[in-house]
Amino acid sequence: MTLRFEDLNKHLNSLEIGQEMFQLIKELYPICRSMTGNGIRDTLHLIQRHVSLDIHEVPSGTNVFDWTVPKEWNIRDAYIKDEKGEKIVDFKKSNLHVVSYSVPVNKKMSLTELKQHIFTLPDHPDWIPYRTAYYEESWGFCLAHKQLLELTDGEYEVYIDSSLNNGHLTYGEYYIRGDEMDEVLISCHTCHPSLCNDNLSGIALTTFLAKYLSHLSLRYSYRFLFIPATIGSITWLCLNEPLVSRIKHGLVVACVGDSGNITYKKSRQGSAEIDGAISHVLQHSQSSYSIIDFYPYGYDDRQYCSPAFNLPIGCLMRTQHGHFPEYHTSEDNLEFVKIPCLADSFTKCLSALYIIENNKRYINLNPKCEPQLGKRGLYHSMGIPRQDMDAQIALLWVLNLSDGKHNLLDIAEKSGLSFYPIQKATDSLLRCNLLKEA
Amino acid sequence: MTLRFEDLNKHLNSLEIGQEMFQLIKELYPICRSMTGNGIRDTLHLIQRHVSLDIHEVPSGTNVFDWTVPKEWNIRDAYIKDEKGEKIVDFKKSNLHVVSYSVPVNKKMSLTELKQHIFTLPDHPDWIPYRTAYYEESWGFCLAHKQLLELTDGEYEVYIDSSLNNGHLTYGEYYIRGDEMDEVLISCHTCHPSLCNDNLSGIALTTFLAKYLSHLSLRYSYRFLFIPATIGSITWLCLNEPLVSRIKHGLVVACVGDSGNITYKKSRQGSAEIDGAISHVLQHSQSSYSIIDFYPYGYDDRQYCSPAFNLPIGCLMRTQHGHFPEYHTSEDNLEFVKIPCLADSFTKCLSALYIIENNKRYINLNPKCEPQLGKRGLYHSMGIPRQDMDAQIALLWVLNLSDGKHNLLDIAEKSGLSFYPIQKATDSLLRCNLLKEA
Amino acid sequence: MTLRFEDLNKHLNSLEIGQEMFQLIKELYPICRSMTGNGIRDTLHLIQRHVSLDIHEVPSGTNVFDWTVPKEWNIRDAYIKDEKGEKIVDFKKSNLHVVSYSVPVNKKMSLTELKQHIFTLPDHPDWIPYRTAYYEESWGFCLAHKQLLELTDGEYEVYIDSSLNNGHLTYGEYYIRGDEMDEVLISCHTCHPSLCNDNLSGIALTTFLAKYLSHLSLRYSYRFLFIPATIGSITWLCLNEPLVSRIKHGLVVACVGDSGNITYKKSRQGSAEIDGAISHVLQHSQSSYSIIDFYPYGYDDRQYCSPAFNLPIGCLMRTQHGHFPEYHTSEDNLEFVKIPCLADSFTKCLSALYIIENNKRYINLNPKCEPQLGKRGLYHSMGIPRQDMDAQIALLWVLNLSDGKHNLLDIAEKSGLSFYPIQKATDSLLRCNLLKEA
Repeated sequence: MTLRFEDLNKHLNSLEIGQEMFQLIKELYPICRSMTGNGIRDTLHLIQRHVSLDIHEVPSGTNVFDWTVPKEWNIRDAYIKDEKGEKIVDFKKSNLHVVSYSVPVNKKMSLTELKQHIFTLPDHPDWIPYRTAYYEESWGFCLAHKQLLELTDGEYEVYIDSSLNNGHLTYGEYYIRGDEMDEVLISCHTCHPSLCNDNLSGIALTTFLAKYLSHLSLRYSYRFLFIPATIGSITWLCLNEPLVSRIKHGLVVACVGDSGNITYKKSRQGSAEIDGAISHVLQHSQSSYSIIDFYPYGYDDRQYCSPAFNLPIGCLMRTQHGHFPEYHTSEDNLEFVKIPCLADSFTKCLSALYIIENNKRYINLNPKCEPQLGKRGLYHSMGIPRQDMDAQIALLWVLNLSDGKHNLLDIAEKSGLSFYPIQKATDSLLRCNLLKEA
Repeated sequence: MTLRFEDLNKHLNSLEIGQEMFQLIKELYPICRSMTGNGIRDTLHLIQRHVSLDIHEVPSGTNVFDWTVPKEWNIRDAYIKDEKGEKIVDFKKSNLHVVSYSVPVNKKMSLTELKQHIFTLPDHPDWIPYRTAYYEESWGFCLAHKQLLELTDGEYEVYIDSSLNNGHLTYGEYYIRGDEMDEVLISCHTCHPSLCNDNLSGIALTTFLAKYLSHLSLRYSYRFLFIPATIGSITWLCLNEPLVSRIKHGLVVACVGDSGNITYKKSRQGSAEIDGAISHVLQHSQSSYSIIDFYPYGYDDRQYCSPAFNLPIGCLMRTQHGHFPEYHTSEDNLEFVKIPCLADSFTKCLSALYIIENNKRYINLNPKCEPQLGKRGLYHSMGIPRQDMDAQIALLWVLNLSDGKHNLLDIAEKSGLSFYPIQKATDSLLRCNLLKEA
Repeated sequence: MTLRFEDLNKHLNSLEIGQEMFQLIKELYPICRSMTGNGIRDTLHLIQRHVSLDIHEVPSGTNVFDWTVPKEWNIRDAYIKDEKGEKIVDFKKSNLHVVSYSVPVNKKMSLTELKQHIFTLPDHPDWIPYRTAYYEESWGFCLAHKQLLELTDGEYEVYIDSSLNNGHLTYGEYYIRGDEMDEVLISCHTCHPSLCNDNLSGIALTTFLAKYLSHLSLRYSYRFLFIPATIGSITWLCLNEPLVSRIKHGLVVACVGDSGNITYKKSRQGSAEIDGAISHVLQHSQSSYSIIDFYPYGYDDRQYCSPAFNLPIGCLMRTQHGHFPEYHTSEDNLEFVKIPCLADSFTKCLSALYIIENNKRYINLNPKCEPQLGKRGLYHSMGIPRQDMDAQIALLWVLNLSDGKHNLLDIAEKSGLSFYPIQKATDSLLRCNLLKEA
């Protein structure tokens, strides 16, 4: 079934989508993902139940700009046993226990030696931190600080059954062909293990956006990327460089499930159309929000917005990475993401894309004075309800500013009205032949 | 007598002008004006006692852009009689009682039928509303809501002795030839019956501006339009299209007699010279004021600022149309407009035009370092009074910024001084040959 | 010894410099300076103990733009004696007692006649004002108002042993040749008698800036001017017009010793590099400060910023001239200037020049995505101290914004970091061949 974008709302129940997103997060939660390896493959296979994405495998050692695709890491088991042979730390209970990219170990050692490989959060003694050791040959365990304090002197058996071999970097890609070759890019990172907000929430939002947009008749083509952070976007940009110029709008989506307000980090350009569209949606929503300027760290927008690409891609979050204490800890769990928040992030994302799809420039074909709206049934002189008054005012704004310089979002911003009545007024005026597309 | 604009203040007593304006309002108040008809003609004849304006008659049916000049409406009498034959509503007592452009009626009817043609203001039960039925064949009466509630069942005689026939749209125009063909346009609407602020106040201000400017030696040519709202400006723009490019500055004047603060609605351009001039006057006045952005509804600026014309024309009001409860009711009467407020609106308008007339760009002929002002008698080193200090500082500002990029208003704004000392300093420097016009 | 600018801090103790500045002020304080004459010569000779400046003598009568170099004024003695022959006012006790440029007098007169030549400050009855009578043939005495009130009727002997003859206007100039011919101009005025803040403080700051910069390896050439106010800068600009185009940055330095906060008056250009550099230094200092727009009166920036020159020269002060009651009175004395404030002004000036010296534009040589900093030893993934975190973030900012459009100061401003870590990051990236100069 092919829907017009504007009909999507009638067919969507955002809370149901929130529930579907949460269900996917729940299924993905136990998987031990890392920069490479089977955890990402398993993740992409689960996503394929919703959208038929392509899975790409890029061999270790491939040069991608200044970087090299790393060896593939996989882990089967890991634990620490005490002198009594009891497993006091067990990878099977939480995949956060093992520092990602740890090399294999099978060794007995003293507590003193072991401690050099243990990471904890003294300020949050019950939480397990999440750590990685990409690009360095080492190993480590992450523990609740409380547990570390309870460890007594003695000999410990340390076991990590991992492998770090030539293999592949795996990523998923889903493409929808619209009327135009110009593209909207939606990107999320897939390299975190059992962490829900960062970034199973982003994976879920991207998946369901892809799923619902695939039913629509679209102006732009859409590309959805499910990639490991940093190396994934670098790899994709390098291998797809000829496509990059098609990208006219985009979003990196991360941390979109917590109960904080929306934070939108603008593209490096700062006033790209996507920046305006998201700002407009947030400004006309009932909720508080933050819009912040681009900075060159954080998620993959740092690669998309590197100076040679400088793409019009912003980053949609709720609470910013690093700004919630649960960030990169075992507390970023299934309780930390909320169904209404997931749904809200989804809806706002969709509303911004709705604007992008419809944000065109028109020319008033009767630009000398106003046209007579009354004889076209568009003018109601007396005692009309507020909503119709807004509709009438929207007609006047569209006519007055359709001079080829203002797009519909510009008109909405100047009028103080939201995008939707402006776009409806435009449709009415097009039907009366008072406008043409610029 | 030909005065220089700068000498006008000496010859003007603004309170006297306020009184003259009020006197004209009083004379015009009883006349039943509408979009067309004899009410406008009578109004223009009264104005001719002050300025010899030309009266133009445009035949019904004339095509003006997307519109057609309507039939001419005239009304002689109208009433509603109750069963006892008593006139309970009488046009002769208030011309607001009849909906403007009502077609003739002479009919008996039940209260139920009559009520479908009656308009009241339930929130202001003593006031009579003002309503029109342009461009639709209908009739109606406007009543105090209190009176409506008192009507008892029974048969009513309804009589409207009006005519809606081919005739003319009537407007007045007054032109003053200045040194340049470039024009300032001042426009007011003349189509409202017994309503004082909206817009007998605008008519009065325009009339006396025309009268007093006609005695002056002027840089710009001035055109004053007395037109019915909307259709009048559309008609004038259509019939005078070749003249439009001469209009360099302009004001629509309406609702300038109430006791509220001045509201200035900027031109669509937003930073036209007239916008700057009015802002400057308001900013250096002692009173509060509002400056608001252009919006494409309201008075005739919506036509002058339609995209193909986009003229540098703003709208001067006190309280904005629709923002005072008396708007379009019988309470917008002779008590509602105040002589000092009329005078204040007049003076501020004149001050802005003074700036426009004198706002030129000059070139400092001694641009390397300061010229020695002392040897020209322009520098006073010690213990001078504050006013002379300001005069001296004004000299330095004019010299420093007369680089061909700044006009005098720019210099006034940058210096924080008001326009007048900047212009006086300019005169002194011109006399010393330290400046020339750019 | 030739130091790099960045090594200067290690060799400088700012408090010691404050003490040296104060010592120079103390030596210069007793000298009776004026627009011309031996007072200025003596002043320049004392400065020569620190920097080998050139002393220029411009003959009276020389035409300099619209001005003429005035006669040279010198004074040997002056007093007022009462009837008893007692010196009640004595130039030797305070050179402020005599209005600068007073013509010779030797005459007995009544109190009434004398009073016409006496200036006091009624609001500050204990203070002696400072007054001048340049460009007018007159004479006068400045007294504490209290003393004026105590004068009784009788005959007074008035004696001024001064001369006003053809001679010279004297100024000092010190030039340091840097790598480039492009220049930084530092200018102070030398024409005030026993007044410390205005402007022995400026003379001292300029002297020690010249002294310390002379030991450094510099990008720009530096020119230091010690000139009488107004006529001095006009003379210099006129006689050195071909050099003017080399001046790329500059500061007028005055009133830099009082205990008020720094005030920086921007150049006429308003967004010159020096304006940005000083703003950045002030914004990242711990102290309050004011940044004000250019105005065409005050110190010699009014000449440097006259429209034909419009040089990128601002004015560094602490409390603005005229904004402290001690201004131009005997209370602007050795107690009024403070060593830590002199030192602070010096340091901030130096910091701004440090920025100017290092503020270049670079090109990221790896502009497609981020380069891999880890393999170059520039990336530290885990648990690094805050300072190193800032250093790492600085690297990312420099890489992201080194697109040929942003200089290092732009990058510092956009990042919110101070200039120094941005410049250090740039050095690291240059060493790794990740940047080149634009």
